[in-house]
Amino acid sequence: MAEAKQLSGAGLRGQSAGQTALCTVGQTGAGLTYRGYDVKDLADNAQFEEVAYLLLYGKLPTQVELDGYKARLKSMRDLPTALKTVLEQIPADAHPMDVMRTGCSMLGNLETEMDFSEQHDKIDRMLAVFPGLINYWYNFTHHGKRIDVNTEADSIAEQFLWTLHGEKPEPLHVEVMHASLILYAEHEFNASTFTARVCASTLSDIHSCVTGAIGSLRGPLHGGANEAAMDMIENWTSPDQAEDAIMGMLARKDKIMGFGHAIYRDSDPRNAIIKEWSKKLSAQVGDTHLYAVSERVEAVMWREKKLFCNADFFHASAYHFMGIPTKLFTPIFVCSRVAGWTAHVMEQRANNRIIRPSADYTGPDNLDWLPIDQRA
Amino acid sequence: MAEAKQLSGAGLRGQSAGQTALCTVGQTGAGLTYRGYDVKDLADNAQFEEVAYLLLYGKLPTQVELDGYKARLKSMRDLPTALKTVLEQIPADAHPMDVMRTGCSMLGNLETEMDFSEQHDKIDRMLAVFPGLINYWYNFTHHGKRIDVNTEADSIAEQFLWTLHGEKPEPLHVEVMHASLILYAEHEFNASTFTARVCASTLSDIHSCVTGAIGSLRGPLHGGANEAAMDMIENWTSPDQAEDAIMGMLARKDKIMGFGHAIYRDSDPRNAIIKEWSKKLSAQVGDTHLYAVSERVEAVMWREKKLFCNADFFHASAYHFMGIPTKLFTPIFVCSRVAGWTAHVMEQRANNRIIRPSADYTGPDNLDWLPIDQRA
Repeated sequence: MAEAKQLSGAGLRGQSAGQTALCTVGQTGAGLTYRGYDVKDLADNAQFEEVAYLLLYGKLPTQVELDGYKARLKSMRDLPTALKTVLEQIPADAHPMDVMRTGCSMLGNLETEMDFSEQHDKIDRMLAVFPGLINYWYNFTHHGKRIDVNTEADSIAEQFLWTLHGEKPEPLHVEVMHASLILYAEHEFNASTFTARVCASTLSDIHSCVTGAIGSLRGPLHGGANEAAMDMIENWTSPDQAEDAIMGMLARKDKIMGFGHAIYRDSDPRNAIIKEWSKKLSAQVGDTHLYAVSERVEAVMWREKKLFCNADFFHASAYHFMGIPTKLFTPIFVCSRVAGWTAHVMEQRANNRIIRPSADYTGPDNLDWLPIDQRA
Repeated sequence: MAEAKQLSGAGLRGQSAGQTALCTVGQTGAGLTYRGYDVKDLADNAQFEEVAYLLLYGKLPTQVELDGYKARLKSMRDLPTALKTVLEQIPADAHPMDVMRTGCSMLGNLETEMDFSEQHDKIDRMLAVFPGLINYWYNFTHHGKRIDVNTEADSIAEQFLWTLHGEKPEPLHVEVMHASLILYAEHEFNASTFTARVCASTLSDIHSCVTGAIGSLRGPLHGGANEAAMDMIENWTSPDQAEDAIMGMLARKDKIMGFGHAIYRDSDPRNAIIKEWSKKLSAQVGDTHLYAVSERVEAVMWREKKLFCNADFFHASAYHFMGIPTKLFTPIFVCSRVAGWTAHVMEQRANNRIIRPSADYTGPDNLDWLPIDQRA
């Protein structure tokens, strides 16, 4: 399963742009590993903080280390007043990824990384603050509420749901969020991570690296596939209706989001995990059709096109069952992937050369200067 | 002159990462061309708006086109109230590149690019607004003044100096700023431009691309060399003192900023141009030593190390003679390079594949899951 395609050419596909000890995608027995551990083992057994610790500190934490790390992150959640003021200036119809990008950039003004010796502090702070940051803006602009981000939540997973909904979330939902954050935490030299590494290679600060990565993740070819999947499946109230619609979309050659992958060839190892959680949530919330619709779409896409669900497709229904507004799906990706991005930034810094490729020139050569009165 | 080094390996050096019709660096007869025109011809004869138009619209403008373009940019200078509020939240000791990054990102919340058909509007807006943006923050935090960015300035060059100093600048200074902005406008697949293209390749919005590029330009290996050069040369009051100090720095193997280049081998074609302007400014302001110090440093570095001044070195003294605070040198680079960045974004969009390289894996393989009570 989850073998990698052989690709090369445009978009640097198949070309090595550096070394990493953080992740393999489709290389070894497992389809996805973080520092050598199968993502399935991590998603089935770990909390997100264990995985962030693994990526950022190089090993799985002991119980004492994990407890200490979670307490540390919990102590770093508060939003500076100036950041709240900035968030309140951003309109309700802004793109939530623009809010994340601006919030991260503003944090960099208020708590600038002055020296790389501070990198772990700044990274942990971003991990701790991002869930409250987006939900502060969301609640202020959509419900007119200034929320208190200093909750009693035990984890980043719980903090996201708590600051969104304003109450302690159900244990099952927290468990799903841990798995979801783990699945999205890291994926080798994807475009947003590569953005972070290019920025890091100039020896810029950590907030610049993450701000740039958020901007790249915002692109519809990268993050956002789970939002697009949700926008699609929420139109259908039965599997048969979904099948008819998908067959029509395929006939019209419409793009169907949440399927296939730039690297994987025949499956995405993250799909089975989030699909199982979506099924459990469906039962819990008394869903009458959304999970069944999703399963049918999966079956039709495989039958018709041999296209498999990627990590994003069943995330759509899973998040929906937990009452998460669709527009906040990609910001959750940020709350998770910031662990991977920043682990890559530290790795780049530890063995750096500025990333400065060349280009094939296709324009005109040696043009003579044309005075303005001679131009057409 | 200005031949390119042959390089390969780490940092994608010497590897093609795509095509461009915008720029050559050290390839043809001239050391640097924009759409086939020698940068020397452009800097000697053009206004910055002509060069921005060339990069963004594909040809040198006629007089009517140039007049129309400048009038358009002039009409787009105003700062939205919410953006001013955000800028006022950023402390005086923030890094000015963090201010640019956050200001650009915030603009993207207020005036989001909803569709690529809007790209020219959004780009022209950034060109028009950036000088006032940074100087609004600078004057507010450093002098307690809320400036009016709607000046009578005829150009981006004049607008920068006018909004900084609060008065119509001298014609010579405006002329130097035009040349400076032209010299910094474009440089092929440098790290910040490559950042913008990676972001663009996800089909993200133009503000994300530019925000990311600003973050990369902030790095001391990329932008900022002219600031570092200024911090160095302002310590010396005579050429002999400078020579003694440089010899000591070379003996200690200190890094000396403003010399050498990742691509050029024996000269940077931009140096002679800005050096000439620095000399004229030196005479105009009655400088007693800074230009002479700069010339001596250039001579010593060549004599001792065969290292040549790059574009940045004489920019330091030139900007200083115009009363520009050192910390605003790199933001000027942004006001210029945004033309090149966005031309590359449009080029990437016109023939896109997501930029997603691979990596050489150096970490452990197939680790067994370790329950938390078995970890060390």
